[in-house]
Amino acid sequence: MAAIAAADQADHGYDGDAWTAKLDAAFSALFDAPVKALWITTGTAANSIALACLCPPFGGVICHEEAHVVVDECGAPGFYTHGATLMTLPGTGAKLQVEAVRDRLALIRPDVHQVPARAISITQATEYGLVYTPDEVAALGALAHDHGLGLHMDGARFANAVASIGCHPADLTWRAGVDILSFGSVKNGGMVGEALIFFGPEAAARAAEAERWRKRGGHLLSKGRYLAAQLLAMVEDGLWLANARAANAAAQALGGAAAGRLMHPVEANELFIRLTPAEAATLRAQGFDFHDWGEGAARLVTNWSQDSASVQPMADALRALG
Amino acid sequence: MAAIAAADQADHGYDGDAWTAKLDAAFSALFDAPVKALWITTGTAANSIALACLCPPFGGVICHEEAHVVVDECGAPGFYTHGATLMTLPGTGAKLQVEAVRDRLALIRPDVHQVPARAISITQATEYGLVYTPDEVAALGALAHDHGLGLHMDGARFANAVASIGCHPADLTWRAGVDILSFGSVKNGGMVGEALIFFGPEAAARAAEAERWRKRGGHLLSKGRYLAAQLLAMVEDGLWLANARAANAAAQALGGAAAGRLMHPVEANELFIRLTPAEAATLRAQGFDFHDWGEGAARLVTNWSQDSASVQPMADALRALG
Amino acid sequence: MAAIAAADQADHGYDGDAWTAKLDAAFSALFDAPVKALWITTGTAANSIALACLCPPFGGVICHEEAHVVVDECGAPGFYTHGATLMTLPGTGAKLQVEAVRDRLALIRPDVHQVPARAISITQATEYGLVYTPDEVAALGALAHDHGLGLHMDGARFANAVASIGCHPADLTWRAGVDILSFGSVKNGGMVGEALIFFGPEAAARAAEAERWRKRGGHLLSKGRYLAAQLLAMVEDGLWLANARAANAAAQALGGAAAGRLMHPVEANELFIRLTPAEAATLRAQGFDFHDWGEGAARLVTNWSQDSASVQPMADALRALG
Amino acid sequence: MAAIAAADQADHGYDGDAWTAKLDAAFSALFDAPVKALWITTGTAANSIALACLCPPFGGVICHEEAHVVVDECGAPGFYTHGATLMTLPGTGAKLQVEAVRDRLALIRPDVHQVPARAISITQATEYGLVYTPDEVAALGALAHDHGLGLHMDGARFANAVASIGCHPADLTWRAGVDILSFGSVKNGGMVGEALIFFGPEAAARAAEAERWRKRGGHLLSKGRYLAAQLLAMVEDGLWLANARAANAAAQALGGAAAGRLMHPVEANELFIRLTPAEAATLRAQGFDFHDWGEGAARLVTNWSQDSASVQPMADALRALG
Repeated sequence: MAAIAAADQADHGYDGDAWTAKLDAAFSALFDAPVKALWITTGTAANSIALACLCPPFGGVICHEEAHVVVDECGAPGFYTHGATLMTLPGTGAKLQVEAVRDRLALIRPDVHQVPARAISITQATEYGLVYTPDEVAALGALAHDHGLGLHMDGARFANAVASIGCHPADLTWRAGVDILSFGSVKNGGMVGEALIFFGPEAAARAAEAERWRKRGGHLLSKGRYLAAQLLAMVEDGLWLANARAANAAAQALGGAAAGRLMHPVEANELFIRLTPAEAATLRAQGFDFHDWGEGAARLVTNWSQDSASVQPMADALRALG
Repeated sequence: MAAIAAADQADHGYDGDAWTAKLDAAFSALFDAPVKALWITTGTAANSIALACLCPPFGGVICHEEAHVVVDECGAPGFYTHGATLMTLPGTGAKLQVEAVRDRLALIRPDVHQVPARAISITQATEYGLVYTPDEVAALGALAHDHGLGLHMDGARFANAVASIGCHPADLTWRAGVDILSFGSVKNGGMVGEALIFFGPEAAARAAEAERWRKRGGHLLSKGRYLAAQLLAMVEDGLWLANARAANAAAQALGGAAAGRLMHPVEANELFIRLTPAEAATLRAQGFDFHDWGEGAARLVTNWSQDSASVQPMADALRALG
Repeated sequence: MAAIAAADQADHGYDGDAWTAKLDAAFSALFDAPVKALWITTGTAANSIALACLCPPFGGVICHEEAHVVVDECGAPGFYTHGATLMTLPGTGAKLQVEAVRDRLALIRPDVHQVPARAISITQATEYGLVYTPDEVAALGALAHDHGLGLHMDGARFANAVASIGCHPADLTWRAGVDILSFGSVKNGGMVGEALIFFGPEAAARAAEAERWRKRGGHLLSKGRYLAAQLLAMVEDGLWLANARAANAAAQALGGAAAGRLMHPVEANELFIRLTPAEAATLRAQGFDFHDWGEGAARLVTNWSQDSASVQPMADALRALG
Repeated sequence: MAAIAAADQADHGYDGDAWTAKLDAAFSALFDAPVKALWITTGTAANSIALACLCPPFGGVICHEEAHVVVDECGAPGFYTHGATLMTLPGTGAKLQVEAVRDRLALIRPDVHQVPARAISITQATEYGLVYTPDEVAALGALAHDHGLGLHMDGARFANAVASIGCHPADLTWRAGVDILSFGSVKNGGMVGEALIFFGPEAAARAAEAERWRKRGGHLLSKGRYLAAQLLAMVEDGLWLANARAANAAAQALGGAAAGRLMHPVEANELFIRLTPAEAATLRAQGFDFHDWGEGAARLVTNWSQDSASVQPMADALRALG
């Protein structure tokens, strides 16, 4: 909020302001490499524009069948790519396995009747809160580039993944072959706005095309400085990582309290636990908020404003369920 | 060829000719109901335009994961629908099971984050040569209409299905809830051109929209009379059904000769058989032509110019393999 | 800013919050009719989604050749409508003349070779700061509806137009045949976010479709309450009109000072004046900010934070130029 | 017809047949340069696919306001380019003037708010039967390439233009900077099918992309050999030019007979003449067929099956009108 208030003064419109001008440098410092960085209004737009930069309308994007781009974006990737195909694969914990991708690629005939794969998209951390290690990303990156495909990372929870692994952000991105990263901010405490980060030799050309999509998609806010200011506040002093560490710690505390109920390992800031309707009712009666996850299960998401201490009451309540 | 030669004279261009004007009546007679009928250059275009009439860009089409629209059209449905999602389901013999469709529909949340299903598409006969019975189509039709979905039938081999079942063409279409049929001609002996048949109260409105897609897709041939003439020649004297019966009989003859090798029942004019590379080589050395189907299998397609007698040599050769 | 700060607390995400829920009622009160109201991130997105609700991909939108949708949105309407045609017409001051529209409609053949018009889009106030009177809008509305077309109003400066005329907002919208209004907020003092207002019997259906486009275009902010809160703050206590009156008064003050230089009448909050490069330099040397407008002309825009008093120094400077 | 009959035998499907394989060589010989050549079902599809190869969705195509791509294709270019903008210019006889194009280009700001021009499209001969000389094409070609634009030629009547000028086909295409040519066949005597010809260093890449569009647009006929056979019959023995010369000669004969009525010079196979309704009725009563062209005018098109002798009766009738 302070960053926004500071930006509440006249400046050049759209993306011509002083805050926006600093994004490339701020993210280049963060990633220890020259990158191009654009603010984007939402994660759905960021993902879709990234895929439009990597995949032509007649191409395909290999991704997990439970990926956010498949399940929760109302077909936005199909909109921005003008009809590219999402080629979905199964896999535990919404993680894409390199072997499964290799097998899928081998099935595609090169003739014009079949859609050629042109990109791979992974979510870090995944929709089930699992984290790809740098080696896992690198294996997908190598496979992608061997086949002439681009690699996109949906990093709505990228900060949580970096905090979880404790690596340098470069290790999970350009060093591992990622071409474009959707860098999440809102799930990590921002108000409005995510970033698209472009790596490698094609970064400038792709970012220039993405600027067209941003405008054409109606995302070029006239007061874009508010978004840029938020992003700078996130990354310039390490706030993004501090927020993510707090959320992860809270998740670990809850995970420890619900160890017997876990459906997936707790590696970031999400927990999926078995929970009967009666148990769910008991928790809600105590004022705790969470998502139902089908029959007999629940999804708990911790955030930047929490830590292991602040979730202690819920941890206690979970333990009390037995 | 004779029909084309007869049409080789000046007339009004595009779809203003005397042949085109007869299509509605000819197909209405065939289906024993008032229908709208358009000639369309290819099956891919016919399927895609049909789906564009049934499904908005933000909607989804439930279909089999091995359907022609999914596997062999280079994403044409995504092009004509402007990015609608093909929601694929597994199922033996490329047949869509009503229970699987019902389960899939139950998983879709009504909120705007998820793509709503708007149509079901089935292939008759399927990509593995299986035939939906009238009851099976009707069950899918009822499910579709209960959920406000349209039902499209890719009938590239529709004639073979009708010939196989021995029913009235109405029983497999409008009486069973089919809204739009891609009526195949080329696989059944035509040179160029298929038909789109529109059934029910929305037939006229959808056909009017399809005429826009036909032009906008670049399919409104200036000499469309050649296509119309072929279709009329097919349906006015029962040639379509005679051709299909011949092809089916040839398939039965081959199926009888390869009974122990069949991977799917032979219900139309396609056979999928187990065949080692050595066996395949033996057949090819005798001059027989067929498609490899992965490792150790082959796909045989019979056509309108054959019958049980003309395929006797190949049947004998199959028997001789043991 | 205060409205945003008040919304800075947890609530249901996306459009499920308490602020968003009040929009329909707040705008229905404003327009004295039951309307549907959606927050939309930008004016470009609002205009494009409105046109997508009124015009199919194979249709056309009649608009002025200098309209914002034509000149300054990088083809966003073509993106959201999937390729609909903008049918542009000339006209003084970027106003669409009813006779010119009627003549254009008469030229379109009804066959499938030509793109059928399906909507008219006008900008209120226009790109040159002119205002359509209620009668002028009503004449276009009647023409549109006689031909089965929808009428869209790009109201980025709608508040200025209402303030200028002194009429009820209904007189410029639904009473005059407007189907969808892009209700501007950012140019009138908002931080982020405009509104789409749907009138008439098709309002609910179109708004439901627009909600799909909003999500599919990546505009469904997870913290949409910030946008809704701004819009409510604008309209609930008349702030929108007070802001516009202030801006208009400032424009009048400047217009009075530059009467001999005016290229268009001053009817809202924009002035287009003849200004030599030397004169422009003189003004800039005194600290005044404005846009060059080709050779020897300038565009001055006043805003909500100004009034006739606050622009007095610039008015004096203009007079001093002689 | 003979060419089609010769192709009426089994071969590999789609574009894998012997006829299709000869197209590159046949057209390379014709144009005296290595080209890539694809058969395409219709001129509308050929033009649209060509533009899709030259212009991204956010780009623009400069063309004449009366060009076929603008007026008579129901927005097909917008469909295949996914919403690119047709930037139309006026000009006598539907000819694009190099100065007008230069002025238009100068007006486009390079920021992301405006659609950048990416291609120029001209029709040869134009919609009014006028012919661009090699120098005129070359001037447009040079301008295009100076600005990084591609140059497309809609050559539905290309043969008539070559026959009219008497130059080598290379002089009107690659030597003058044309990147892609829609080579007309149907208006010149073919039954179904046109060709797309790709010139220059990017020919192979663009043709490969065009093959995707051809399939994705539903234009990859399974029996494409029929189209290829027609094109080969046209170009291998000079039939295309002989047909065009006959049509042009017929047009000259008519033009001579109606010299005082001509609205445009007669340079190819079209005449636009002033003709009162009474005069039109007189001609029609004698059995002559032509198109009305608004009030008091008519459009006469001669074709390959005519020559100056065969149109003598109509020429006489025109003279008799006085």
